[in-house]
Amino acid sequence: MHLYIANQNYSSWSLRAWLIFSHYQLDVEVTKLKLFTTDFYQSLETISPTAKVPTLVDQQVTVWDSFAILEYINEQYLQGQAWPSDVGERARARALAAEMHSGFMNLRNELPMNIRARRKVELSEGALQDIARIDAIWSEQANQYPDGWLFGEWSIADAMYAPVALRFQTYGITLSQAAQKYQQRVLTSDSLQPWLHEASLETDIVIEDEAGVEV
Amino acid sequence: MHLYIANQNYSSWSLRAWLIFSHYQLDVEVTKLKLFTTDFYQSLETISPTAKVPTLVDQQVTVWDSFAILEYINEQYLQGQAWPSDVGERARARALAAEMHSGFMNLRNELPMNIRARRKVELSEGALQDIARIDAIWSEQANQYPDGWLFGEWSIADAMYAPVALRFQTYGITLSQAAQKYQQRVLTSDSLQPWLHEASLETDIVIEDEAGVEV
Repeated sequence: MHLYIANQNYSSWSLRAWLIFSHYQLDVEVTKLKLFTTDFYQSLETISPTAKVPTLVDQQVTVWDSFAILEYINEQYLQGQAWPSDVGERARARALAAEMHSGFMNLRNELPMNIRARRKVELSEGALQDIARIDAIWSEQANQYPDGWLFGEWSIADAMYAPVALRFQTYGITLSQAAQKYQQRVLTSDSLQPWLHEASLETDIVIEDEAGVEV
Repeated sequence: MHLYIANQNYSSWSLRAWLIFSHYQLDVEVTKLKLFTTDFYQSLETISPTAKVPTLVDQQVTVWDSFAILEYINEQYLQGQAWPSDVGERARARALAAEMHSGFMNLRNELPMNIRARRKVELSEGALQDIARIDAIWSEQANQYPDGWLFGEWSIADAMYAPVALRFQTYGITLSQAAQKYQQRVLTSDSLQPWLHEASLETDIVIEDEAGVEV
């Protein structure tokens, strides 16, 4: 399998797809393309219909969306274990993952993933609502599954929210105690560390993803 | 089961979730709430964490996102038949559905679903690109599955793109021949007709979803 990703400091959607390979230690060849360069578009245009990352190529199968990659890997290589086994909890987990996949636009625009930076930003009312909603999700799940991932065992929902833990660190967002505990669990998790290390070696600046003032 | 939807003339996400019930003739009680009214928010706030439609309540299970509802119904009531059985085609179908779920923002903003209207709009470059991408998807799938749905048999991908067929009709968007054939298939499909009939009985105007000038 071959996974195409972008700058690890910045590309939150790449991280979501990559995490399932890291968590389950699945073999995958990773190609990193630099965001918004000519090479980025040229490399992707023959592979992906949207020329976006992440894109997975598994022999004859090409999957060009993070959520679809996570579902594909779960079905093909993990016998479904990356979703909760209980039907109600699986529905909840999918709804939370889908909520991240399609929403939180203000948060995504105003707090772009930028792992190495420590910044302060002025937040809109919409971004504050996004943060409050994520705090509520993390707290509620932490109350139900203390000392666990969002649904006890690691799931695709955790992959979807992982970049948010990094964003909250970058921009110094204050969370409730339960939500902060989940954030720390994500930030210190073994499966994330290789990504953080590789991101720390990057030096390219992507202006489009630089927000706020340094603190 | 109980499905909460909004104004059928306008609510494209409601339509996506509703279509799987209609296509497979599954029993569901539907409650329609008027968009952006006090009743809308009051009815949803005790049911859905995001107070958005569609929301499905199936006994103890609440699912508050259209994509997650479609996956849930497919798993629980359809033995997986709402995705292609071939693994590669299923991955493609999920990627197309996910692309709709998270993207096409310009199209969604500039061409809001408004079934009863016939309008002309000025389109941004981004919206034109969205239209071209959808034309390419529909044409490519029509070439592969002539006289069929996007993947031959009806699938969740068809539910995700159905509101776009209606938008293109409302705003008089010109499509390639293959894409237009798919659009007509959607518009004339049996499973859509009850929705169109119920939408035609509505008289409420939702200003936020009115775009363009009458033709």
